[in-house]
Amino acid sequence: MTTTLKDVVDVLDRLYPPRTAQSWDQVGLVTGDPEQPVERILLALDPTLAVIEEARDLHADLVVTHHPLLLRGIHSVATTTAKGASITGLVVGDIALYVAHTNADVAANGVCEALAAAAGLTDTSPLAVVEDQPLGRVGRLAAPTTLGAFATALHAALPAAASGLRVSGPPDAPVETVAVLGGAGDDQFAAVRASGADVYVTADLRHHPALEAREESRGGAPYLVDAGHWSSEAVWLQTLRDALAGALRVDIDISTVRTDPWTFTVGAENLGGMP
Amino acid sequence: MTTTLKDVVDVLDRLYPPRTAQSWDQVGLVTGDPEQPVERILLALDPTLAVIEEARDLHADLVVTHHPLLLRGIHSVATTTAKGASITGLVVGDIALYVAHTNADVAANGVCEALAAAAGLTDTSPLAVVEDQPLGRVGRLAAPTTLGAFATALHAALPAAASGLRVSGPPDAPVETVAVLGGAGDDQFAAVRASGADVYVTADLRHHPALEAREESRGGAPYLVDAGHWSSEAVWLQTLRDALAGALRVDIDISTVRTDPWTFTVGAENLGGMP
Amino acid sequence: MTTTLKDVVDVLDRLYPPRTAQSWDQVGLVTGDPEQPVERILLALDPTLAVIEEARDLHADLVVTHHPLLLRGIHSVATTTAKGASITGLVVGDIALYVAHTNADVAANGVCEALAAAAGLTDTSPLAVVEDQPLGRVGRLAAPTTLGAFATALHAALPAAASGLRVSGPPDAPVETVAVLGGAGDDQFAAVRASGADVYVTADLRHHPALEAREESRGGAPYLVDAGHWSSEAVWLQTLRDALAGALRVDIDISTVRTDPWTFTVGAENLGGMP
Amino acid sequence: MTTTLKDVVDVLDRLYPPRTAQSWDQVGLVTGDPEQPVERILLALDPTLAVIEEARDLHADLVVTHHPLLLRGIHSVATTTAKGASITGLVVGDIALYVAHTNADVAANGVCEALAAAAGLTDTSPLAVVEDQPLGRVGRLAAPTTLGAFATALHAALPAAASGLRVSGPPDAPVETVAVLGGAGDDQFAAVRASGADVYVTADLRHHPALEAREESRGGAPYLVDAGHWSSEAVWLQTLRDALAGALRVDIDISTVRTDPWTFTVGAENLGGMP
Amino acid sequence: MTTTLKDVVDVLDRLYPPRTAQSWDQVGLVTGDPEQPVERILLALDPTLAVIEEARDLHADLVVTHHPLLLRGIHSVATTTAKGASITGLVVGDIALYVAHTNADVAANGVCEALAAAAGLTDTSPLAVVEDQPLGRVGRLAAPTTLGAFATALHAALPAAASGLRVSGPPDAPVETVAVLGGAGDDQFAAVRASGADVYVTADLRHHPALEAREESRGGAPYLVDAGHWSSEAVWLQTLRDALAGALRVDIDISTVRTDPWTFTVGAENLGGMP
Amino acid sequence: MTTTLKDVVDVLDRLYPPRTAQSWDQVGLVTGDPEQPVERILLALDPTLAVIEEARDLHADLVVTHHPLLLRGIHSVATTTAKGASITGLVVGDIALYVAHTNADVAANGVCEALAAAAGLTDTSPLAVVEDQPLGRVGRLAAPTTLGAFATALHAALPAAASGLRVSGPPDAPVETVAVLGGAGDDQFAAVRASGADVYVTADLRHHPALEAREESRGGAPYLVDAGHWSSEAVWLQTLRDALAGALRVDIDISTVRTDPWTFTVGAENLGGMP
Repeated sequence: MTTTLKDVVDVLDRLYPPRTAQSWDQVGLVTGDPEQPVERILLALDPTLAVIEEARDLHADLVVTHHPLLLRGIHSVATTTAKGASITGLVVGDIALYVAHTNADVAANGVCEALAAAAGLTDTSPLAVVEDQPLGRVGRLAAPTTLGAFATALHAALPAAASGLRVSGPPDAPVETVAVLGGAGDDQFAAVRASGADVYVTADLRHHPALEAREESRGGAPYLVDAGHWSSEAVWLQTLRDALAGALRVDIDISTVRTDPWTFTVGAENLGGMP
Repeated sequence: MTTTLKDVVDVLDRLYPPRTAQSWDQVGLVTGDPEQPVERILLALDPTLAVIEEARDLHADLVVTHHPLLLRGIHSVATTTAKGASITGLVVGDIALYVAHTNADVAANGVCEALAAAAGLTDTSPLAVVEDQPLGRVGRLAAPTTLGAFATALHAALPAAASGLRVSGPPDAPVETVAVLGGAGDDQFAAVRASGADVYVTADLRHHPALEAREESRGGAPYLVDAGHWSSEAVWLQTLRDALAGALRVDIDISTVRTDPWTFTVGAENLGGMP
Repeated sequence: MTTTLKDVVDVLDRLYPPRTAQSWDQVGLVTGDPEQPVERILLALDPTLAVIEEARDLHADLVVTHHPLLLRGIHSVATTTAKGASITGLVVGDIALYVAHTNADVAANGVCEALAAAAGLTDTSPLAVVEDQPLGRVGRLAAPTTLGAFATALHAALPAAASGLRVSGPPDAPVETVAVLGGAGDDQFAAVRASGADVYVTADLRHHPALEAREESRGGAPYLVDAGHWSSEAVWLQTLRDALAGALRVDIDISTVRTDPWTFTVGAENLGGMP
Repeated sequence: MTTTLKDVVDVLDRLYPPRTAQSWDQVGLVTGDPEQPVERILLALDPTLAVIEEARDLHADLVVTHHPLLLRGIHSVATTTAKGASITGLVVGDIALYVAHTNADVAANGVCEALAAAAGLTDTSPLAVVEDQPLGRVGRLAAPTTLGAFATALHAALPAAASGLRVSGPPDAPVETVAVLGGAGDDQFAAVRASGADVYVTADLRHHPALEAREESRGGAPYLVDAGHWSSEAVWLQTLRDALAGALRVDIDISTVRTDPWTFTVGAENLGGMP
Repeated sequence: MTTTLKDVVDVLDRLYPPRTAQSWDQVGLVTGDPEQPVERILLALDPTLAVIEEARDLHADLVVTHHPLLLRGIHSVATTTAKGASITGLVVGDIALYVAHTNADVAANGVCEALAAAAGLTDTSPLAVVEDQPLGRVGRLAAPTTLGAFATALHAALPAAASGLRVSGPPDAPVETVAVLGGAGDDQFAAVRASGADVYVTADLRHHPALEAREESRGGAPYLVDAGHWSSEAVWLQTLRDALAGALRVDIDISTVRTDPWTFTVGAENLGGMP
Repeated sequence: MTTTLKDVVDVLDRLYPPRTAQSWDQVGLVTGDPEQPVERILLALDPTLAVIEEARDLHADLVVTHHPLLLRGIHSVATTTAKGASITGLVVGDIALYVAHTNADVAANGVCEALAAAAGLTDTSPLAVVEDQPLGRVGRLAAPTTLGAFATALHAALPAAASGLRVSGPPDAPVETVAVLGGAGDDQFAAVRASGADVYVTADLRHHPALEAREESRGGAPYLVDAGHWSSEAVWLQTLRDALAGALRVDIDISTVRTDPWTFTVGAENLGGMP
């Protein structure tokens, strides 16, 4: 029996209920017709033009991404803008697009839990509750370690991007309790301090919020690890594939496109002097 | 004859007129009494607790920074918050604080011009005009080069921070026209595209704005260099010292504190494999 | 030589410059690629599903409408909503959509001028100036007439819709000066009174604004004619065809779909008892 | 014993409690002194100048209307504006004015229930709940019929206005479940679709909301009947008279002024070709 | 020949053009019909119920006040509120009401100039320009005096109210330059400081604004005189009478009602110990 | 054992919990370090420069005030503004500042209860509940009296300021039920009328609110007493001293600085002709 887009959407909506998304978010089906058949699904963090091309090459019928294509409403899909070209590429290629964003962040088997697992955390609990949903996780490492060793192990457990991980704090500082929040987490510093975490793993930290958080900590814990927006969330795609594979009889691929925008660095000071 | 704080403020206000600051900004004198004498000035990008301690150790009477300490208004200076501890430390130590922020960005001999010079630009013109002030600069290199070589040279010309420079684009892409905007520049991508620049040097670029800019460019020029908020602006402190030294007979130091929040990286992919 | 979509857009942008649209409006290209060829254009007031089907049947490459399809931004083009089904239908059918809305209202050879011509007006001048653009027109009839006769003649000159024209005022009242504003005009009553018009031809008049305007006139002039949103604006499509035909060598059709939402009336009191 | 205005207000406030009005509404006593005697009441939909004159001619002491005279606050009652002339006419004529608006819409024996009865509905339930009040009604006809026959019967049951009823949908479409909302109902289309109604009877439907509702229905049910703002609500005045007559020993008249703004139509396409 | 209300309004509008009122103000005709005859005018600062009763007793056809009756819009004129009772009293008594408020403040021969004259100022210039109108006045006394003597003389020159004048500053402080702003002037302290005034005469000064102004002055000049809202503005009614008497042949009275809300004081510390 | 600032803050927070302050308020510690010792406390209504000087002269370690120094956020503490000079004076003098404002208004043993006691009220209950806190009090006098006698007795019971008390109403009017609200109370007139109070004691009453309240009362009860912002609240400082003295072993002084801004009056009409 043919699997339809509606069948897949039902599974995804059950795994990541749209009502658990934040009020400002835009999740669910972006292109496609519920009646169209789905034989192959491509999973990616971002619905970029390169990902859409990959889907076309793979003859995928559906792309599932974490990040919305149309977080801001659009008034045109003409190909003169990147957003319009993306929508046109999807529709012309008969490729559906489905987004699970903040609803995937908060879910069991969601983005934050995947990151917590990659960080080696146990006994996790929510970092904060936002709009009634558990955002981020706090947990403990199997054994105490140092900030440098922790960051090195985390890097090995995440999909690699060009920028690597950025760390604020002395490499030999002891860490045992860890807070994680995939993607941009600079609005949860107060929750991190309240949690008693020794280190906070998140991404997209800009100068001012990061520096103010460091000042508020007077240079001590919680230390900061900026794990990269893409790396800290793309780790979830494997979890997603497993969950879908268990519920649907379709082919599922994880995109090989690294949608992190950075290509290389110059002069980054890697711990131990190694790239 | 003794130099007073008022004398120094007059010089700074002339170099960087407060009326040229953006409407949302908070610039000028933050602590101090205009009548107090000034014998030594310390220049820094951020008025952190470590910089205030450095000023105390150096017996500096005045700290001049680029970033405001009180961009958001405060209702308490009790030492229970970092901002309160900073203010208390300055006042108790009899140390004045003066801020030149967006007025320093736009000025001749300002932050953007210092960055343009470090990038090797000539024939510069404003990148955008915001609230009637020239923000950012666009110019040409002395000779065409590659993106990789440009980034390497730029890194050498800027104060070094742990994260190095992040680059989006192929290392061998040709570049000749360059747009620069010190600090956070993710609201000027449209101006950059309109300028015809091959590469945009700025900082604090987060995943979504950077990725959308790359999509809008369909993978081609303008490429991106995130030079780091601290590195891209601290380069100006030398210019500032020279300007003040020419107008005042006081001792002037540039802070040795690297107020960039990051200590080290893990796994950053440096061009050429070197750290 | 092939006419491209870009060629047609250039002609339309010259006739109805997008910068003359009101600030809240959304005009220009909604679907399509500037490089695609255009051999046949379909003109319609609204981009409804029926009009899109008509375009497909006619093998039209481009639909030009007065009303925007996406006045409010959208976050999905899945076929589960009418807007999404419309966009999908256009893109799959390789049909471009271009909108000239308030920029067409104000233009020479625009909607208001077409309506003024249908009403038989001469010596026309703007009714109001809104955001620096001339909105509506005021003019004089060739000869004085009665309200009933004027409305009857106007009805004959406009594309017919089911609701006909609704008139407020005695059939034998004298009229000579006429104000017109195609589409919804209930925010211009003060300008109409200031213009000295005997009757105001517009559409989409609801109970409260219409009744308050009649009270303010104490039952006298200016009388009101609600000519129907579709009828009062679709009259412009002939003008548009002529203008495009003079500039482009493509086939141009006016839609035969009456996109007015009403099918029939019951109990409407037609002047003279005739439909 | 004399009936005072206060006595009448008490009865009206009990029938249509002011606290059940929507938050933006303005209901209750507009002119008059609670101690003044009331011997004759005039009921009308709108407090127009013609209705006030009718009240004066009838020596009515009180006018009760559905629509507010002062929904927007006023800063002058000089006779230079229609609102001022109305207030002055009432006060000089010693005529009180009382308004029951959205509180009358939602009440048992209110406007929506009067319209539901005129439409022949049974088993009615609320169409929507807005600010905790039941707005509109959904019910079933005694027997299935066609859209044309339904509209014809509804027209016969309502006070007649010049525009008649406008209908969107094929005359022979089957209808059995009906949603009604007197006055302007274009913000309840989603509730109507959710209710499963075959047809929606409301008024003041403009081009864009009506057309978008029809598009969303893909041309099928729910069909639309615009019954006219005045006709769809004036049907309630008889209910109101009966309720007041049962509670007060005063003379009560229903206004003979048709406050619908329209005088006649031209070219309306009546079902069956009859006016 | 009879003087009509329109004639009087024309004179008042010429003396105090409504377009010179502040944008938030509500001035002009509040009750009345332009065609009604005017034989007697009553002038007052506030349109209180007692003033309306006085007008009725005097058979005045028009009341002209400085303060608006309906600064906030009203939705009812029922006698259950004071505003409604006032409007009803005016309309039933056939008494027109005209308001000249902020347009009278700024005018030549307006409120601020009347107060400046009472204070004995010469060489006056505007204190501030607000919405393009000259608000308040600054001038010099004929000769230097003390704060105590100045306040005593000002009290003698103004209509007396129960609270007298409140003064902040030492009685023997020297004053020569004076700023005045009738009514509530606590938003012009910065302009007063910039003007170099020794003392600021205004009214309705609350604890916090007054105390902050005194702190900003470090206890020195500019000192403050709160002359009372009523006293500081009612002084203008004599000017108004003279201006109207020169332009109209009607009887003009100044109200004998002291509309200042205060009846008496307890324990006020009068200079010199005298009441 | 040494008392620390933290110890005192704990006591104050228990007496006047910060969470009971209104949402717009700014209460708690403004300057100081929790670890610093406290041997002497100075209590005052306002943290003026004169009060800070008094604290320095008394060697006080902490000033507790009712009014916030930084209700609006500040961006500078340079001595060029009064606020900056105050903060600098406190920090340089090592003097902590703690504010209990609206949390002190509503508390048992708070400002309103101190005022009610001074007014001789018994059987008090809240005047209004604002943000879940009891604001103001209503109670009865031990025996009925006249408005004049009540005001005279109240004046004797409050700290004296230059303006005395202002009273609106006839001196011989009977009063028995009294509403009180220390400080600015012009937003609670409706609650006062609903309470059945014969007189309302509050402060900072401006012309328009006071006059409108008097009009709404048609000249009868509730009468008004403006007791002065400072007098009506400074009466609480004695209560505060007793509460602190019972919980802490430190020296406590009440400021002798009268922070009411007014120095003297001219021409105030004292009841009985006495100052």
